[in-house]
Amino acid sequence: MTDTRVHTETGTLADGRQVIYFDTAPGAGRASFADKRELGERAEAGQLRYDPLRDEWVAVSAGRNARPQLPVACPLCPSEGHELTEIPAPDYAVAVFENRFPSFGGAVDATEPAETADPVGGMEISVPATGRCEVVCFSSQHDASFVDLPPERVELVVRALARRTADLSARGDVAQVFCFENRGVEIGVTLHHPHGQIYGYPYVTPQTRAHLEAAVRHRESTGRNLIGDILAAERAGPRVIAANEHWTAFVPYAARWPFEVHLYPNERFADLTELPEGHIAAFAPIYLEVLRRFDGAFPGSGPMPYMSGWHQAPVSEHRDLAWLRLEIVSTRRAAGKVKFLASSESVMGGFVNDLGPEKAAQILREAL
Amino acid sequence: MTDTRVHTETGTLADGRQVIYFDTAPGAGRASFADKRELGERAEAGQLRYDPLRDEWVAVSAGRNARPQLPVACPLCPSEGHELTEIPAPDYAVAVFENRFPSFGGAVDATEPAETADPVGGMEISVPATGRCEVVCFSSQHDASFVDLPPERVELVVRALARRTADLSARGDVAQVFCFENRGVEIGVTLHHPHGQIYGYPYVTPQTRAHLEAAVRHRESTGRNLIGDILAAERAGPRVIAANEHWTAFVPYAARWPFEVHLYPNERFADLTELPEGHIAAFAPIYLEVLRRFDGAFPGSGPMPYMSGWHQAPVSEHRDLAWLRLEIVSTRRAAGKVKFLASSESVMGGFVNDLGPEKAAQILREAL
Repeated sequence: MTDTRVHTETGTLADGRQVIYFDTAPGAGRASFADKRELGERAEAGQLRYDPLRDEWVAVSAGRNARPQLPVACPLCPSEGHELTEIPAPDYAVAVFENRFPSFGGAVDATEPAETADPVGGMEISVPATGRCEVVCFSSQHDASFVDLPPERVELVVRALARRTADLSARGDVAQVFCFENRGVEIGVTLHHPHGQIYGYPYVTPQTRAHLEAAVRHRESTGRNLIGDILAAERAGPRVIAANEHWTAFVPYAARWPFEVHLYPNERFADLTELPEGHIAAFAPIYLEVLRRFDGAFPGSGPMPYMSGWHQAPVSEHRDLAWLRLEIVSTRRAAGKVKFLASSESVMGGFVNDLGPEKAAQILREAL
Repeated sequence: MTDTRVHTETGTLADGRQVIYFDTAPGAGRASFADKRELGERAEAGQLRYDPLRDEWVAVSAGRNARPQLPVACPLCPSEGHELTEIPAPDYAVAVFENRFPSFGGAVDATEPAETADPVGGMEISVPATGRCEVVCFSSQHDASFVDLPPERVELVVRALARRTADLSARGDVAQVFCFENRGVEIGVTLHHPHGQIYGYPYVTPQTRAHLEAAVRHRESTGRNLIGDILAAERAGPRVIAANEHWTAFVPYAARWPFEVHLYPNERFADLTELPEGHIAAFAPIYLEVLRRFDGAFPGSGPMPYMSGWHQAPVSEHRDLAWLRLEIVSTRRAAGKVKFLASSESVMGGFVNDLGPEKAAQILREAL
């Protein structure tokens, strides 16, 4: 569906990348401001290599290792005078632009499918790392944080993510759209301006494949939707931390991370493009509550680092089975202490949760 | 086979845990020293929970979150006078003891199988987190590092790991034995005394399952061993960083990590218990060379953090297909810079390698 409550304008940056402004009303005129920088050429697509041992694709984008860390001027602030940034307009509500150092980067409007199907043959299979990497600026205020946004802005962000999901899904080279936010220096965030990212992967990610394979098996054996059964069990259980008419937030029974919250709509949608107005309106307050509970878990320890990402259906597989949901995890396991992924997790995929899901749920429930 | 070049003595710590000394000659008499501490009870097994969405087991061991970080006295040094440690003997060569805060901890001599088979049924399935977690002390010298060990000590370590693999594989509750070393504060190591660990998992880990599934498919379609084909391709390629008669070390074509070295024996063995004397002797110098290359990659940046783990066959599955090998990875991507696993890797399993495998191989080749 086309959401009439979000209005977009699309501009072009000096190297040909797109910048897209999202507003709640038409006529903001932001795309009329030109990018006055000299940037050279738009980046070429890197390489996607197939790992025959893990049956996974790995993006190899050697150029990214040289990308700047903590640049002096914030590239996500609006341009002002001689301070020229990635956002040519002098102000914005929500803005999306193509990452200048993308892990996945096809043509601006790719129509050809990605070449990731059926990687059999030799031991060294590679295809162009097409797809798309975008940056989503949540606010023009440099010092804001997502948790401080008003609910109306959260709604605009969700509508922008839904619109980007629709547009990226229409590209030929995107197999799955992932909208996410990394927050905190503890997980490597170098730009502190409030922002998220969108990856249009040219393949279906390993986690999504695993979830869908489990859901297929579950449907075959029970006739029911796996996520629906998980949600029903969790709603009746001891680890719910927030809930409203349309959403439930809980720490799952077998959480991998010290703090891991799953925020599920109470009915099934394949992805953000299907989310009705009522669900968008109900999402903003519960997500802000979850983030406040995260920040309140360890008072005096500074903002909680987190990774927050939307699980969405692949563009063209299992859309009748996938269940849109948000996963928010933190590596902080105690005040000033971080859970590291060491050999068991990183080399073997064997996770150990030392805090315990019930304890994490208790801490989050008592955090406000 | 029983390796006659390693001699063991087994003692019991104050809480009933085992300590095992490994020496190159018999009669060291180390187990005659009693543990004079008062430690209370041996830890009970925690819980292993099944995640129906990821089709994985997660160890939930709430007691571990309270374990000490950087204790004042090193518990891995030999006991001396009133400084009573985890090692009652006044000196040792290589010593192994049961972790006091284990993620997996069954009875000292478990004969019953783990209850991890066929986890179907409800949404909340748990079994006791049986199995075993051990600490392996590589040297009684607190300030040593693995890379500084003489080759003879490296050989003794490998023989000790092989012996522990054999003994843990004979337990009823161990499905896979993982021997590994985490090194460096950057990956959360709190004890700096040179040591590794052994996990006797009560399940086959997700990575091993993925590798074996890929190997099964490869054998069905080609009749050949997947690891053998990977090794042959890599040996003919541009990413070999060290090699000798019995071993090849290379950065794989689709490396996930900035620095990822696979060290493979040139012929197939299922696990360390099958490794012949000649291969053990040839392993020590090449592994030490790889570690020296790691430490030399970024001079002046301090010792390279790394995770180093042995991929071994499961105890009772696919032993005719698995190929013993060592994987050494580092999160350091440049001098003073760390690759963080953020949302793409952690939530979706989608890896991005910004340095590039050929560049990493070049840096390691030029590091000495």
